[in-house]
Amino acid sequence: MKFCSNCANPLRLGIPDEDNLPRHICDNCETIYYHNPKVITGCLPVYQDKVLLCKRAIEPRKGYWTLPAGFMENNESTMEGALRETYEEANAHVEISHLYTLTSIVHVNQVQLIYLAHMEKPEYAPSNESLDVQLFSEKDIPWDELAFSTIKNALNFYFEDRRLGKFPLREITLNSNND
Amino acid sequence: MKFCSNCANPLRLGIPDEDNLPRHICDNCETIYYHNPKVITGCLPVYQDKVLLCKRAIEPRKGYWTLPAGFMENNESTMEGALRETYEEANAHVEISHLYTLTSIVHVNQVQLIYLAHMEKPEYAPSNESLDVQLFSEKDIPWDELAFSTIKNALNFYFEDRRLGKFPLREITLNSNND
Ligand SMILES: [Zn+2]
Ligand SMILES: [Zn+2]
Repeated sequence: MKFCSNCANPLRLGIPDEDNLPRHICDNCETIYYHNPKVITGCLPVYQDKVLLCKRAIEPRKGYWTLPAGFMENNESTMEGALRETYEEANAHVEISHLYTLTSIVHVNQVQLIYLAHMEKPEYAPSNESLDVQLFSEKDIPWDELAFSTIKNALNFYFEDRRLGKFPLREITLNSNND
Repeated sequence: MKFCSNCANPLRLGIPDEDNLPRHICDNCETIYYHNPKVITGCLPVYQDKVLLCKRAIEPRKGYWTLPAGFMENNESTMEGALRETYEEANAHVEISHLYTLTSIVHVNQVQLIYLAHMEKPEYAPSNESLDVQLFSEKDIPWDELAFSTIKNALNFYFEDRRLGKFPLREITLNSNND
């Protein structure tokens, strides 16, 4: 970030009064720019004993499998975003049960929310964001071809919790460039 | 947002390829700007039968009571942010129990997380963000002087749940300029 998006003046990095972190500051129009984590919201869609995964058509991790999820947009709730992403990536309509995982991915400044969701019918299809969409039973999950460790965690929790019959919220913090 | 913060070129509003929402686009350096909701994270600190509230020293809602909470920063988890805000606003150290409320405040593009937390000792003090900090029992809560409806909701849930002895995650969507 080099220039003020309000007046095009060059920015300087400094600590504003009554703040304690460096921010980008415009001395011309006195705007202060704050950079905050972004929310990723999505679903873990379940149909009978299977879960729905999407094969990514776009980078990062193109060709790897993931749960339908993406950046939350302005003017929507976290649940609306999760439903929207599930429809955009998998052409699937789901019913949300409850928030299932909350992961702070500290090294990339993201907070990922995954909702447990149910599909009434096995209806889904690839989209321009997904090369393929499939239902997988536990024994067929492509564990070595999952796109992100957060997705692997969510699936591990799900199959573990299914044996116990309870799906409590799982809260995780990841903080490493290897995650 | 009028100018590219990377190259100072004027921006145009347009829908990028394979997108479906208008974004600010720089045709000079080909940067696309996405605007996403921000996360507010904080605590509902409990000491014995009382909860800790802060009287806001800054706008908006200066002079009104609130729970310690604020914008999540980069390079921290949601829980770390909640603990940081509780210390910055109330000079209180708390122990987090679990995520208690998740509110999508759609009309201001915020997601607010409030963690239920416990104080081992009644130690707290005002800060440059809080004019006053006090423990309140249920009958003394200043209901008419609370800063935000999200805070009123969290306190109502807490006292209701305390009678039942269970504190499940409450998920709320607010979408009105009156909330
Ligand atoms: Zn400026
Ligand atoms: Zn540019």
